[in-house]
Amino acid sequence: MHRTAGIISIGDELAIGQTLDTNSQWLSGRLTELGVGVRRHVTVADDLDAIALELERCAREFDLVIVSGGLGPTADDLTRFAFARVLGDELVTDDASLDQVRAWFTASGRSMPRANAVQAERPASASMIANAHGTAPGLFARVHDCDVWCVPGPPSELRPIFQAAIVPRIRTERVVVTRVLRTAGLGESTIAERLSAMMARDRNPLVGTTASDGVVSCRVRYEGDDRNEGRRLVDAAIDQVRETLGAYVFGEDDQTQAGAIVALLAERRKTVATVESCTGGLLAGAITAVPGSSSVFEKGLVTYSNEQKTDLVGVPSWIFRQQGAVSQACVEAMAKEGLELAKSDYCLSVSGVAGPGGGSEDKPVGTVWICRAAADGSLDTRRFLFNGGRDAVRQRSVTAALVMLWLRLVRAEGLPLLAQVEP
Amino acid sequence: MHRTAGIISIGDELAIGQTLDTNSQWLSGRLTELGVGVRRHVTVADDLDAIALELERCAREFDLVIVSGGLGPTADDLTRFAFARVLGDELVTDDASLDQVRAWFTASGRSMPRANAVQAERPASASMIANAHGTAPGLFARVHDCDVWCVPGPPSELRPIFQAAIVPRIRTERVVVTRVLRTAGLGESTIAERLSAMMARDRNPLVGTTASDGVVSCRVRYEGDDRNEGRRLVDAAIDQVRETLGAYVFGEDDQTQAGAIVALLAERRKTVATVESCTGGLLAGAITAVPGSSSVFEKGLVTYSNEQKTDLVGVPSWIFRQQGAVSQACVEAMAKEGLELAKSDYCLSVSGVAGPGGGSEDKPVGTVWICRAAADGSLDTRRFLFNGGRDAVRQRSVTAALVMLWLRLVRAEGLPLLAQVEP
Repeated sequence: MHRTAGIISIGDELAIGQTLDTNSQWLSGRLTELGVGVRRHVTVADDLDAIALELERCAREFDLVIVSGGLGPTADDLTRFAFARVLGDELVTDDASLDQVRAWFTASGRSMPRANAVQAERPASASMIANAHGTAPGLFARVHDCDVWCVPGPPSELRPIFQAAIVPRIRTERVVVTRVLRTAGLGESTIAERLSAMMARDRNPLVGTTASDGVVSCRVRYEGDDRNEGRRLVDAAIDQVRETLGAYVFGEDDQTQAGAIVALLAERRKTVATVESCTGGLLAGAITAVPGSSSVFEKGLVTYSNEQKTDLVGVPSWIFRQQGAVSQACVEAMAKEGLELAKSDYCLSVSGVAGPGGGSEDKPVGTVWICRAAADGSLDTRRFLFNGGRDAVRQRSVTAALVMLWLRLVRAEGLPLLAQVEP
Repeated sequence: MHRTAGIISIGDELAIGQTLDTNSQWLSGRLTELGVGVRRHVTVADDLDAIALELERCAREFDLVIVSGGLGPTADDLTRFAFARVLGDELVTDDASLDQVRAWFTASGRSMPRANAVQAERPASASMIANAHGTAPGLFARVHDCDVWCVPGPPSELRPIFQAAIVPRIRTERVVVTRVLRTAGLGESTIAERLSAMMARDRNPLVGTTASDGVVSCRVRYEGDDRNEGRRLVDAAIDQVRETLGAYVFGEDDQTQAGAIVALLAERRKTVATVESCTGGLLAGAITAVPGSSSVFEKGLVTYSNEQKTDLVGVPSWIFRQQGAVSQACVEAMAKEGLELAKSDYCLSVSGVAGPGGGSEDKPVGTVWICRAAADGSLDTRRFLFNGGRDAVRQRSVTAALVMLWLRLVRAEGLPLLAQVEP
């Protein structure tokens, strides 16, 4: 039974503060959802003794340990050696894994560098865990009645391995039932106010929120010993959150705002185009991140200079003289012409001051105009003032533009949005 | 003398993955710069036994320990109690600190809530560290010949306390000198092979590598007792890495591939345009992520459908019939026309199969064609086969396209690139 867990992250770049460890947070969030009590995260340098010491300690103290990093092909990758030492094992070559590592390179037309052969080695009593997203397989073995998994450090490899190979083998006695609603367009503190009664720490199920790039996730979590009761309570709480937050809710679980939009557009056989200035392609990038988006998205324009706003989408030059490129008139001209050019059902346009330079008293850094045009002639144009640096302003502009299209698709155009300001 | 250090972060919200710990990274970065070898970060929940156990362990193993968090006024703030237990001390009220805590509230016109009185308590043998940015003073005491500082968790309090009260008391004999080179276009294992002698674990300075989205960073780190010698050795090692990796090196420290390109283009007063299919705007997004990119980037086109490839950049329809949109002929037509339309000096075009659907035997998922066209008529067109899911294929395509422009700018067009395959 996996009651307690420790998480060990390996790497000089982490120990000396060059890289921020996000794996421990991600892993402990997932383990907590599953009902495992995460007791400790430890980060150590690429040092054989230190890794072995932590592994030994955690294996004695906890039921489950996840070690991330240090499985690469280079001399500073020492996790498998430390694992072998703790197990008292020799390293042996795992033939099936060697084939897989070779196949990884063959698939991209290369031969396997000699250094990568070590990635097919495992402590004799350990088993290999296939990695579909990189060359480093994971390792599993029991140490002192503790289940130890070693997984590669890159999040793009660690996360799918955790979901596919570790989650199915976790056994907990507490029943945990979780559902997550995704919202966009409201601030986390506004949501917390509206849901305050459900967020009291002693509630079961408990509602918690996390925010990232303008998307606020509301997690409903039951912990107890009756799965049916848990499901019933969680479903009821989810209904209550949906009712409270209305059209700001765009999906569940891993749904993205763009994913929800693409699904709805595809269902209705509608299309969208984009004309971007300060987001410089990121809005189109967010839409095309969704598999199958080609059925709803044909064209995006990045009109970064004023000349291109005129050349490509015919924004009249008097607009720049009278109101500037960051203005209602400019984004409306961009969206209307984008709609014409792409012959699409909707068009989103964005123009703003992402910073760090370019701000003025009238239009400080973070000022962004966004327009949503539709083939029926309707326009929704809003001005925002976003906090944060260049990346944050651009990312939040993308989210806001998507929310504006979402509100139109669910017939809730009138709702106010986070960071929106009066023109 | 402070040779080694451990960092302990306290909090349920960290242990269960609700909050990302950034203090450990920040503190270890500063300690590393000062020449202290950070050996371990540990995160534990708000649990008296667990905090005392870690404190005891770290104090026995290291010269210096910093504990962050758990100094607040509520029932789950347990750091001072754990510290007292490890010291074998009673808690006593520090009168001067009590006055300071009271004054903090008085300054904002409130009276001190009774709960906050505990923040003026310290283990009898510990001393208080003033906190100008919050109500929680820090604590200092020696435990088993180890200097232990306990500081409040909010970064806005922790950072100034560290700078003001801890930095002046740190004594190191080891000097640490670090430099980082950023490379793109080679795999991490290829780089490790080429630098293998310099990456031996007993070398000083030591070279280490980390990879992320096709960018491999090479970190050179000297640890010793002579700063001038360290600088000399690190500079020499950096030169050697540069010489070995040549044009694949695009910058130092926090430089990005796009940042290096924008800087070089701006210096030469040249411009670039983009015409994207499978990357759907991300390539333009990467270029425009660089502050000041407006001087080198005016226009980007996302031609996601075949019709738009014809409409916007005039790709003849026979190309789709004969070779398909993922082909040399298509990306070359896209880049040449993009160059014309934007009247730019360079144009990058990308067309590929990002997946998960759309692959075929001839053109499996991950097949991407990229073309770099220049106003002098030259073309560099390459075919790649990238591993990983949709996001990874798109991200690696962006990096590869940027590297192709970079190689042109540094006159090294001929160099082969990671994941490149014969047409």
